[in-house]
Amino acid sequence: MDHPQPLVTVDAVLLTLRTTGLEIALHPRDRAPFKGAMALPGGVVHVDEDASTEASIRRVLREKTGFEPRYLEQLQVFSGPDRDPRKWSLSVSYVALVPAAELEAAPAGFRFVSVDALPPLAFDHADIVAAAVARLRGKSSYSTLPFFLLPERFTLTELQRTYEAILQTTLEKSNFRRKMEAWDVLEATDDYALGAQRPARLYRLKDFALFDRSVG
Amino acid sequence: MDHPQPLVTVDAVLLTLRTTGLEIALHPRDRAPFKGAMALPGGVVHVDEDASTEASIRRVLREKTGFEPRYLEQLQVFSGPDRDPRKWSLSVSYVALVPAAELEAAPAGFRFVSVDALPPLAFDHADIVAAAVARLRGKSSYSTLPFFLLPERFTLTELQRTYEAILQTTLEKSNFRRKMEAWDVLEATDDYALGAQRPARLYRLKDFALFDRSVG
Repeated sequence: MDHPQPLVTVDAVLLTLRTTGLEIALHPRDRAPFKGAMALPGGVVHVDEDASTEASIRRVLREKTGFEPRYLEQLQVFSGPDRDPRKWSLSVSYVALVPAAELEAAPAGFRFVSVDALPPLAFDHADIVAAAVARLRGKSSYSTLPFFLLPERFTLTELQRTYEAILQTTLEKSNFRRKMEAWDVLEATDDYALGAQRPARLYRLKDFALFDRSVG
Repeated sequence: MDHPQPLVTVDAVLLTLRTTGLEIALHPRDRAPFKGAMALPGGVVHVDEDASTEASIRRVLREKTGFEPRYLEQLQVFSGPDRDPRKWSLSVSYVALVPAAELEAAPAGFRFVSVDALPPLAFDHADIVAAAVARLRGKSSYSTLPFFLLPERFTLTELQRTYEAILQTTLEKSNFRRKMEAWDVLEATDDYALGAQRPARLYRLKDFALFDRSVG
């Protein structure tokens, strides 16, 4: 208790899938340090109102973006004397997976950038983004995590494109559909997506519980 | 910067494998709060000397146990207004995998308890232990993580017993050996373990890099 305590912040990597691939939502900082630089949405823990650091990031996102992500996962702590010029600081970082339409509709007016072409970011936010992308890619091949990047109802082709964008590979269609069938996580709806080609059945995830083959 | 800041601590779950199965190393707290209760080794971040929270936990372990674990992984942040009676607090928790002989030799004089029969612990340390055990069990079936619970050289039977203790199951010997062969992570030494039965070849991990099939 005698030692000066670190500055404790929370930051969120809002991952989404847009036409160019995996992107994150950033905003320019409106105050020092790094005023004007692009940054992850984040803020300081308020010990007088937050029940936990997860409550802190949910409050910050609500205030700054006007929505609560369906999928939010604690990522990692980044800490040290040099990452914030003000003082020794610690960021509890989170990763959220958000369908593009939800983020684009947020009042915050985010700027979207590809995770493969980041501009210079404030603090060590580039390291936080890299850790979030590695976490998503590492977990995606054996989990339903990618579903959270899609709207509630989607076609099998949209689902496959989502896995392909995250895993950075091309999947063979019949293998992919067999794998989904074996996982038994999809529920067909009565509706179809009407597009340039013939109508495609819309599916949804059976329940929104995260399916993780490495744990289950 | 205007808000009072949380108390920032670091705690480590030292997991080891002893004859009764998976155990953790605890010590009784020598001061309030929870004086006398069993607790994880941990301490407060020292911003004047620690380069990061990982440096903090390594310093604390060095001071309290006299050794540095070969395998240390950041686990999760536990936080909130009620977990520490002193103030709103945050613990950055770590999990270390340590061969039993190393922990038993530590000057600290740890007490070992089975992860399946924990006594009442200080703070929310029981939650931290549960998260550490879930992490280890979740990752073990597809990684070489369990190797870090073994001494540098081990027999194939010892290796199989280690996986079995973590995964809480019985593995079929020839399947297990085929899997290890497919992973290509073992290196035979020229030495043998002499025991009650016929001498068994000693192996070691090819290199100490963590092998994780879900990421690689």
